[in-house]
Amino acid sequence: MPKQELLAEVIDALCCMPGVGPKSAQRIALHLFQRDRGGAENLAKALQMAVDRLGLCKKCRTLCEHELCDLCASSKRDPQVICVVESPADVWLINQATNYTGVFFVLNGRLSPLDGIGPDEIGLDKLEQQLESSQITELILATNSTVEGEATAHYIAQLALPYKVKVSRIAHGVPVGGELEFIDSTTLAHAFSGRRNIE
Amino acid sequence: MPKQELLAEVIDALCCMPGVGPKSAQRIALHLFQRDRGGAENLAKALQMAVDRLGLCKKCRTLCEHELCDLCASSKRDPQVICVVESPADVWLINQATNYTGVFFVLNGRLSPLDGIGPDEIGLDKLEQQLESSQITELILATNSTVEGEATAHYIAQLALPYKVKVSRIAHGVPVGGELEFIDSTTLAHAFSGRRNIE
Repeated sequence: MPKQELLAEVIDALCCMPGVGPKSAQRIALHLFQRDRGGAENLAKALQMAVDRLGLCKKCRTLCEHELCDLCASSKRDPQVICVVESPADVWLINQATNYTGVFFVLNGRLSPLDGIGPDEIGLDKLEQQLESSQITELILATNSTVEGEATAHYIAQLALPYKVKVSRIAHGVPVGGELEFIDSTTLAHAFSGRRNIE
Repeated sequence: MPKQELLAEVIDALCCMPGVGPKSAQRIALHLFQRDRGGAENLAKALQMAVDRLGLCKKCRTLCEHELCDLCASSKRDPQVICVVESPADVWLINQATNYTGVFFVLNGRLSPLDGIGPDEIGLDKLEQQLESSQITELILATNSTVEGEATAHYIAQLALPYKVKVSRIAHGVPVGGELEFIDSTTLAHAFSGRRNIE
């Protein structure tokens, strides 16, 4: 490739995105500057503005541009129920899929001591402050069902013990539409032990 | 999704890239602002700089930040041989794969009258000026082997007729490593009629 420095810089910079390697970065860069310069400018401005102004909500630690995110600022949300999730994307997913009306707490990660991610890195000190200062009635643990997610949920459950708050974990089981034949045995065991009476 | 306007703008803006839909855009945006804010800032700056300064080479119409691109400005390149390609990516590919030492002319597209892309839109007026004013010895047509690419090559060959310049088209045939069994019949016919004597 000849030394087209600006273009090479763009291609390098594009590689910071997940799923984009040097080949797709080249394709994207050429597309933008051959056919959609407006899109490139738009993207540059949106990214820069977000870099400058996007922070974490003071209360729930989701990505937001104000001091409090829309959910924490809303009067329609019950501040006594907190749902703990790993990422802002989970907030959107739960809001879309359920009729949950409480607030959230976003860890922005999960406990992973080997990577140097301890309780403070995922904001558990802030969660504990909230447990201390406000009247929380329920803590719903909606971390992922991975080893780290389970460990994180367990840690938070222990953390909440002294505050005598109801702690729940989202259910494990057979996905809706799933056939038993294709479900792994651990999930099936969870589904079995977590069976509910039909009333 | 709650109204996180800045993040929503970034996600919208990311969708201008080929191969990136709303789902991947959301994943990319969250990755950037949760884990790689430096990468996001870097990308914003690189894009903005390229938007501001990237133009077309005055002579060969490839994307470049100076008046002339490195190849056109180089004294090591033979300016009498011009290879016509559809995109700047093709320039890089040919430079990597061959020992071609002439210069290029980048169409930045192909003839496509139905889409309003005529000879002037792909810079053929400029190519004709070069045929008129300088001593070109050979014009190598390396447009894609698609219907539009072939039509464009044919059009340029006609255009060059009055200037008595040697016009060649890159060869069609069996790709190296390809088995005859899996080659389509048109390619095989081309390979057959384009056979060369072994000396």
